[in-house]
Amino acid sequence: MNALGEEILQRLDQAAACSEPGAGVTRFSFTAEHRAVGALIEGWMQRAGLETHWDDAGNLVGRLEGEGSDHRTLIFGSHQDSVRSGGRYDGMLGIVLPLVCLEALREQGAALPYPVEVIAFSDEEGGRFTTSLVGSKAVAGGFDAEVLAMEDADGVSLERALREFGADPGGIPALARRPEDVRAFVEVHIEQGPVLETAGQAVGVVTALTGIERHRLMLKGKASHAGTTPMESRRDALVGAAGIVLELDRVCRETHDCVGVVGELEVVPNVVNVIPAQVRLTLELRSPEDAIRVDARKRILGEARRIAEAHGLGLDDALVYEQSAVSCAPWLIGELGEAVADATGERPRELFSGAGHDGLAMAGLTDIGMLFVRTPDGLSHHPDEALAAEDAGVAASVVLSLLRRFAAACR
Amino acid sequence: MNALGEEILQRLDQAAACSEPGAGVTRFSFTAEHRAVGALIEGWMQRAGLETHWDDAGNLVGRLEGEGSDHRTLIFGSHQDSVRSGGRYDGMLGIVLPLVCLEALREQGAALPYPVEVIAFSDEEGGRFTTSLVGSKAVAGGFDAEVLAMEDADGVSLERALREFGADPGGIPALARRPEDVRAFVEVHIEQGPVLETAGQAVGVVTALTGIERHRLMLKGKASHAGTTPMESRRDALVGAAGIVLELDRVCRETHDCVGVVGELEVVPNVVNVIPAQVRLTLELRSPEDAIRVDARKRILGEARRIAEAHGLGLDDALVYEQSAVSCAPWLIGELGEAVADATGERPRELFSGAGHDGLAMAGLTDIGMLFVRTPDGLSHHPDEALAAEDAGVAASVVLSLLRRFAAACR
Repeated sequence: MNALGEEILQRLDQAAACSEPGAGVTRFSFTAEHRAVGALIEGWMQRAGLETHWDDAGNLVGRLEGEGSDHRTLIFGSHQDSVRSGGRYDGMLGIVLPLVCLEALREQGAALPYPVEVIAFSDEEGGRFTTSLVGSKAVAGGFDAEVLAMEDADGVSLERALREFGADPGGIPALARRPEDVRAFVEVHIEQGPVLETAGQAVGVVTALTGIERHRLMLKGKASHAGTTPMESRRDALVGAAGIVLELDRVCRETHDCVGVVGELEVVPNVVNVIPAQVRLTLELRSPEDAIRVDARKRILGEARRIAEAHGLGLDDALVYEQSAVSCAPWLIGELGEAVADATGERPRELFSGAGHDGLAMAGLTDIGMLFVRTPDGLSHHPDEALAAEDAGVAASVVLSLLRRFAAACR
Repeated sequence: MNALGEEILQRLDQAAACSEPGAGVTRFSFTAEHRAVGALIEGWMQRAGLETHWDDAGNLVGRLEGEGSDHRTLIFGSHQDSVRSGGRYDGMLGIVLPLVCLEALREQGAALPYPVEVIAFSDEEGGRFTTSLVGSKAVAGGFDAEVLAMEDADGVSLERALREFGADPGGIPALARRPEDVRAFVEVHIEQGPVLETAGQAVGVVTALTGIERHRLMLKGKASHAGTTPMESRRDALVGAAGIVLELDRVCRETHDCVGVVGELEVVPNVVNVIPAQVRLTLELRSPEDAIRVDARKRILGEARRIAEAHGLGLDDALVYEQSAVSCAPWLIGELGEAVADATGERPRELFSGAGHDGLAMAGLTDIGMLFVRTPDGLSHHPDEALAAEDAGVAASVVLSLLRRFAAACR
C-alpha cells in the first residue's frame, strides 16, 4: 500500500506549491492560491471519476454517484486553507487521500453502491477573516449571514471576497444538505500532537472534538519596595499567579481527558526591585467531555479565589470563549476501528482531538468520524510539519477498508 | 518637641519646591534644581552657625567647629537628589533635621566640645547617571574616576556635568577624609517600609544596610499546541517558572532577615493556546547578613534546578549584581538606642535597612549609624510619600540626645 502513500505525498507537495511566497504554506480563502489549488484538486477529482463544481461558499465539491439503491452520500473532506507559514498536510491530506483511494478503486474496476463526495472546504483556519469554518458551515446549514460583513486586514469584506472569487453569497443557504441524504462525514487529518507517535501507531480513531473555554484573569496586589517591605506585609500578585499556574497544571494532570494551559501572563510594573502589583493571565481548558471541563474549571477557579484571598489579592475572572465538545458517532468510531484493524492487524488506538476541525460544523448535519494520522514530533502549523509516506499509505488502507465495509453493508 | 517637627516639615516643603515641573519631587544631581536647593540649605547651615563650602564632588558641606579638645568630627548627612517624581522626605530629611537641631542648640547657647558637619551629598539615587553614591564615595575616599566618563540621557558626561556645576573633578581625590579625623557618620532617613508603622513606633535604629544580589534566569521549554499536547508530554516553561516564584517566596518567608522577589517575568511566545516555550525572570535577594543571603540563594537555585529538570526545561542563571551587606557599628547602635530611650521612654526598635543609602559608601571611612523614621503606608519614591511632624519631632529629640551624649563622653 506504500504506492498510494507515495502518490498522496507527491500530490501534497504539488498542492503546497499553491502558496504565497515565504516559508511553509500560506494559502488563505478566496485568493489566487485558493483558486490554483482548486484547479489541481479538480483534476484529481476528475481522474477519480467525480463530477465537480464550485459552490457559493467557495467549496470545491466532487461527487461520485453510487451504482446501487442507497442514495445516502458518504462525504469526505477537509479544508484547503492554511495558517500563515503553515505545513502542507494540515487539511489538504483529508482532500487528497480519499481522492487517491477512489481513483485506486476505479482503476480496480470496483464500483460503490452508494454515492461519495469529497469536498475541499474553503475556510477552516479562519486566517483571513475573524470567522472560521465558512465552507463546512454552509454545507451543514449552519452558516450565519452576519459574518459576511467581516473584513480582512485589507478591509475586504467576506461578501466581497466571495463575489470576487466567483461565488454568490446569496446562494449559500441553498447549499445546506438534508440530513436524510447524508450517510456520514469522515475526515482524515494529521494528529498535530504526539499521542500516536508516542504509542508507535500510524493512525488512530478520534472519539470527540474537544470543547474549549478561555478565561482572562486579573490579580491585583500592591506595588511596594522589594527591599523595605517585609515578606509578611506583601501583596505580591505574581506569587498568587504562580499558585494558579501550578494549580491548573495539577488539576489537568490529575484529570483524565482534560488539558489546560496558562499561555499568556504579564506582570505590572515588571521591575526587578518592585513587588508585582498586577498580573494578567489567560487560562484555557479543553476536554472531549464538557462535564469534565466544567468540573476542572470549578476546581481551578475555586482554588484561585482561595490563593488570592490568602495573599490579599483582588481577583477578576472573565470567561471570554466557550465551545462545547462534539462527539464522533459511536457506530462510526466502531467502523473506523474495524477498518484500522483490517489495515494494520492492530487494535485501534482511540484518542480525542484537542484542536477544532470541519467536523465541528458538519456534526450539525450528520454523524461524524475522524481518522488521525501520526505527526512527527507532534509539529503542526509550522513549515516543518511532516508526514511519513508509509503512514499515509496505512491511512489510505483504512479508508479503502471503510469504503468496502459500507459497500458490504449495502448489499 | 513638636515645634522642631513643624519647623523640619516646613523646610522640607520649601526644599521640595526646588524640583523639575511635574508630580512630586524630581531633582537630579548637578542641575539648576540641585543648585537652588543648595542655596536654601546653605542659608540654614549659616543660621545654625556652620561654615559652608561646595566641594569638587558637588557636595554642600557645613562645618561647626567644636569648643573642646576632641578634634574628631561627627558627620551627619544624606542626599539632596531624588528619583523622578519622588517624595520630599527621602534624603532631604537627613540634611534638614540635624541642621534644625544644631540651630536649636545654638539658640539655647549650648556649645559642643567636638566638631560637627552636615553634608548634603550630591548624588545617591543615581537617577541621572548609571552610577550612584558619587558624593559620599568622594568623601569616603571610594570614588572611582572611571565613572566620570558615564553619560546621562542627553549624552552629557559626569565629568562635564561636574565642571558645568562649578566643580573640578580633578579635586575629588583630595576630598577623602582621614579615618582618624572622623568620629562617625550618622544618617536620619525615612524608613520607606512598613515596619515602624506596624510596630506603632516613630523611630527605629538600623542594624545594617542590606546586601543585595540579582539574577537573571532563563527557562527553556518547548512551544507546542495547547490542545493536542497531552499534559505528560509538555515542557511548559511557565509551569517551571511558577514553581521557582513560589520556592523563592517560601524560602524568604522561612528565613529570618531575608527578603526576595521575582519582580520581572516575561513569557515567550505569550499566546493563549500555545504552551510557553521560554520564560525570562529576575530574582532578587536581600539580607543584612551575607551568609543568610548566600544560603537562601543556594536553596532557591538548587530547587530551581530540580524543578527545571522535573519539567524537562533548560535553566540558565546569571548573577548580574551583588552588593555585600554593611553593618552599623554596634557602639553607635547602642548610643542611638539610648538616645531613642531618652527621647521616647520606649525600648528602641532595631531593624535593618532593605534599601541602600549613603552609609554604604561612608562605611569605608568610618563607623556608621542610622536612625529610621516611620513612613506612612511604607510609601516612598512616590509623590505621596509622607512624614508626620510629630515623628520628625521625635527624631529631632533623638538627635539632640545623641549630640548631648557625645558631648558628655568628651568631658
